[in-house]
Amino acid sequence: MNREELINQIIVKKSFLCIGLDSDINKIPKHLLKLEDPIFEFNKSIIDATKDLCVAYKPNLAFYESQGSVGWDSLIKTIEYIPNNIFKIADAKRGDVGNTSHMYAKAFFETLNFDSITLSPYMGSDSVMPFLEYKEKSVILLALTSNTSGSQIQKLQTISNVDLYKSILEISKKWGNENNIMYVIGATKSNELKEIRKIIPNHFLLIPGVGAQGGDLESVVRNGINSDCGLLVNSSRSIIYASDNNDYAVAARNSALHIQKEMENYLMEYSIIK
Amino acid sequence: MNREELINQIIVKKSFLCIGLDSDINKIPKHLLKLEDPIFEFNKSIIDATKDLCVAYKPNLAFYESQGSVGWDSLIKTIEYIPNNIFKIADAKRGDVGNTSHMYAKAFFETLNFDSITLSPYMGSDSVMPFLEYKEKSVILLALTSNTSGSQIQKLQTISNVDLYKSILEISKKWGNENNIMYVIGATKSNELKEIRKIIPNHFLLIPGVGAQGGDLESVVRNGINSDCGLLVNSSRSIIYASDNNDYAVAARNSALHIQKEMENYLMEYSIIK
Repeated sequence: MNREELINQIIVKKSFLCIGLDSDINKIPKHLLKLEDPIFEFNKSIIDATKDLCVAYKPNLAFYESQGSVGWDSLIKTIEYIPNNIFKIADAKRGDVGNTSHMYAKAFFETLNFDSITLSPYMGSDSVMPFLEYKEKSVILLALTSNTSGSQIQKLQTISNVDLYKSILEISKKWGNENNIMYVIGATKSNELKEIRKIIPNHFLLIPGVGAQGGDLESVVRNGINSDCGLLVNSSRSIIYASDNNDYAVAARNSALHIQKEMENYLMEYSIIK
Repeated sequence: MNREELINQIIVKKSFLCIGLDSDINKIPKHLLKLEDPIFEFNKSIIDATKDLCVAYKPNLAFYESQGSVGWDSLIKTIEYIPNNIFKIADAKRGDVGNTSHMYAKAFFETLNFDSITLSPYMGSDSVMPFLEYKEKSVILLALTSNTSGSQIQKLQTISNVDLYKSILEISKKWGNENNIMYVIGATKSNELKEIRKIIPNHFLLIPGVGAQGGDLESVVRNGINSDCGLLVNSSRSIIYASDNNDYAVAARNSALHIQKEMENYLMEYSIIK
């Protein structure tokens, strides 16, 4: 799925919600553990309950890899189960030399049919380029992350007296364009979105951290929205673990619906939908 | 395996060679493709042929993940097959928020029994700390990588007029100590090792890039060795693909032996062995 189709889905669904499938075998409802593939069954219910309310799903690879090859199978089934009109993000945060990045690109864009992948910018352009060879796919580069300690590195001052992550935005935006590069900006850093929009006015931003991590949707929208919306706001735990009982899918839907309604209002306010 | 045991193995084997198991289904000898698990069979032969010559093996996760759950099974079998007195490095280059890093630590240090893992420092200390909770294990942080484009980011000048990677060394060395943190410094950057040793005189360095990527062992040793050796020099393609015929294991041994002999001479010259 490319940028144009993503924008279209945002308009159709009146939503820029991304749901993080950080599905943890220790946190899903206990009755699922009797089934053959508990993680897939959990994801399937969450997807069924929320697929009309969100435009993207983002499985975090760590939660699948920690289960070994069984987890990998759950991930494959999950990706196949997500409808084609929903943007599929591999939250992988990879980054390696070109030779290896080619293998990762193959893994995530061919073996698994993801639309996009999160990558670290630390190894420079040749770690990103192999992913950009896939014309309908995109990468999402870490810029300013939602965790507290990210600032230890990301806000190091560079010689031009700006935070490191801003220098990285300036450099990395030239590796591709607004159609094939997005950036991760934590919702907890929404105060910095105005400055960020001066550097990258048109790129899509993936904003994790609304919900369990304490980020605020209104502040993200006020500072970060652009004329194409330009935002994918992710919520993981506050949706998928809205209840730990048998009603978890209904609870997830209610939690997602609450956010979608708020998003619909913002999309109208900013004339992105009528 | 901890630092002390690693140093002991370097002395016993007269070697500080790490062999990168970047085992690519498209590059291994064709006759192996008839077997049930070609990648594992390839790795098994390489391990049998080289295990007395190296102190570490480093599977690069990309090559296994690109094969899906089959690749994951090959990796598990490979890790189980490597003898306990050899240091096992997951070349994963991960890095995520604390909650997720806990899952990765579980994946690599429990589900798989790796001794160490490569991580990106870009998300700061809380992305690394969950790995340091494992007392006999260690992390290897990316500092100055072997690829050309790494310098685009890693050599950005910080306000104190030093390269970014040097600032990262200064900051990150306080996250742990020389027993549980190592650093990746590309062999192609050996000229910078003297400066690096001023910042981290005692830490072990994982040095990829000797061989196919053009790094020079002598220059690495002259500029980077310390009284514990302090170096793990990795070679991948120049050993495991030394031949693409049926004699690949013998060729791999010869290639590894050539490097080990050179290393033995350096270890004697620097009085690390007698």
